[in-house]
Amino acid sequence: MARGSLLVVGTVAYDSVRTPAGRRESALGGSGAYFSVAGSYFTGVSLVGVVGEDFAPSDMDILRSRGVELSGLETKPGRTFRWSGVYGAEDVKTRDTLDTQLNVFEDFAPSLSDAHRASGYLFLANMEPSLQLDALTQMSPRPRLVSLDSMNFWIDGSGDALRRIVENVDVVFMDEGEARSFTGQVNLSAAAKAVMGTGPSSVVVKRGEHGALLFHGDGVFSAPAFPTERVVDPTGAGDCFAGGFMGYLAATGDLSEAGFRRAAVVGSVMGSFAVESFSLDRVGSLERGEIEGRFRALTEMAAFAPLGEGESLPWRGRQDWREE
Amino acid sequence: MARGSLLVVGTVAYDSVRTPAGRRESALGGSGAYFSVAGSYFTGVSLVGVVGEDFAPSDMDILRSRGVELSGLETKPGRTFRWSGVYGAEDVKTRDTLDTQLNVFEDFAPSLSDAHRASGYLFLANMEPSLQLDALTQMSPRPRLVSLDSMNFWIDGSGDALRRIVENVDVVFMDEGEARSFTGQVNLSAAAKAVMGTGPSSVVVKRGEHGALLFHGDGVFSAPAFPTERVVDPTGAGDCFAGGFMGYLAATGDLSEAGFRRAAVVGSVMGSFAVESFSLDRVGSLERGEIEGRFRALTEMAAFAPLGEGESLPWRGRQDWREE
Repeated sequence: MARGSLLVVGTVAYDSVRTPAGRRESALGGSGAYFSVAGSYFTGVSLVGVVGEDFAPSDMDILRSRGVELSGLETKPGRTFRWSGVYGAEDVKTRDTLDTQLNVFEDFAPSLSDAHRASGYLFLANMEPSLQLDALTQMSPRPRLVSLDSMNFWIDGSGDALRRIVENVDVVFMDEGEARSFTGQVNLSAAAKAVMGTGPSSVVVKRGEHGALLFHGDGVFSAPAFPTERVVDPTGAGDCFAGGFMGYLAATGDLSEAGFRRAAVVGSVMGSFAVESFSLDRVGSLERGEIEGRFRALTEMAAFAPLGEGESLPWRGRQDWREE
Repeated sequence: MARGSLLVVGTVAYDSVRTPAGRRESALGGSGAYFSVAGSYFTGVSLVGVVGEDFAPSDMDILRSRGVELSGLETKPGRTFRWSGVYGAEDVKTRDTLDTQLNVFEDFAPSLSDAHRASGYLFLANMEPSLQLDALTQMSPRPRLVSLDSMNFWIDGSGDALRRIVENVDVVFMDEGEARSFTGQVNLSAAAKAVMGTGPSSVVVKRGEHGALLFHGDGVFSAPAFPTERVVDPTGAGDCFAGGFMGYLAATGDLSEAGFRRAAVVGSVMGSFAVESFSLDRVGSLERGEIEGRFRALTEMAAFAPLGEGESLPWRGRQDWREE
């Protein structure tokens, strides 16, 4: 396995989702599936996870058609992980989980091949922190870059275990509420700095339709979101963001501040495609021009004329009124 | 009155506010006060509104010290407009109005002097749409740029009157919920385009701590928000955004796309100062270096390396997996 290759350990699931735009039953989903497909446009991705005997060959083909390396995706007796949820009636900002069935994932223990252990880039998708630590411990040598996603369920229920793994990764993906509850800091900048104080060099705060904030060293980068005309289903958008982000970094090997900023924009691009359909329909069938077109659109959206070195904003001080 | 001068018609109020950071009783506020102070750093601002006999000379001095031209701020028998509200316990995203007393504002009818009528730039702050229309009708000649703010109360209760005035302005400031309910479009881009379809050339969607989206012609600009470390009181932030935005445009006269984009960044800067204190404490006492420093910080926050003309993102197509 090349050092530039990207490994993800995560779930492959069947999701049943209802959103204001419609509903979809038992469709391919899961953090590992979304991540690996999004990352696959930029670099070779290996997916480690587990599915049940009910996992359809056609769904395996969706992953395979994107070139995802699947030697680490075990098929076990039983049913595939299943999740069902419903998004808010008025917009998609609120989500209720209706049902979670771990099924074959209940006994999942990541077992990495020698090739997987040598991957240069690792993403630990949202799952029990002890599984994330288990996977990281198997890596040899340590990857160039390790990132992690989590969620409130683990922050609330397994905070100490999560802290142990967070200390040992480079990049943490969280949403605003997660960053706040993980650190106890209401202020977002303070929360990001608190996470970075324990080890990670970067925190990516995902803000959905508002883009993302990348805290990296002393800098903050505000990655815009593409204002997509039709939000069908937000499921997996965060994992696709992470997939684009990590895929770009693994493909280029550019871990400079500039590289991280571009990676965040690529992540934003991939997240914007993810929400435009149920399941992987849209994000699994992109053309090169679509991805680059949206990257260029975000470039245009974020551009404004900086102040030149000697240039000033118009200024009117305190005394001016007396003079008129 | 010079054509570059900026006129605002709006409220001057005493606000009593409780936020997670504390509380403040009967402090200077109101859309006209916040707007004029924020705009005053860039250009001459005239404020048309009304206060009661209880309005403190020291509060008049706050406006005067910023050079706000106050010949149109009448003092009438009775009490000044009063508003009280409380922001959400966990963060400041939710707000409940506890009490609104129109007092002297109840009989307010804007009466513009000849000098005010000739102002080149006009901001119609959030108030009853019929008052906004009344003020606009008095302008002669038509200003170079007219902008308007509103809120859900008027959208729900006076939608037709609001539509009549919106048709006649150039720039509309709204938040996301307001844009949606005013147009009936859930999608934000669609909502902005629906507003622009009735007349305005620009829509500024304020997103609080997430910055703002400027829809201008065919373009969209995503203005980042400054991630301030301490949010004390969000009251007036939108009016300070508008004040910075309009102040910059009036001072420079640059109504190009580039000018509008910079104006949105200046607006974002002024909004970020507004939230750092109760009332006008912070936004009323800024130094030149603070404003420019934050403009430069936002420039740095939004910067990433665009793709050069011949440059491509890394790309891995559908067939690659077969070749490995």
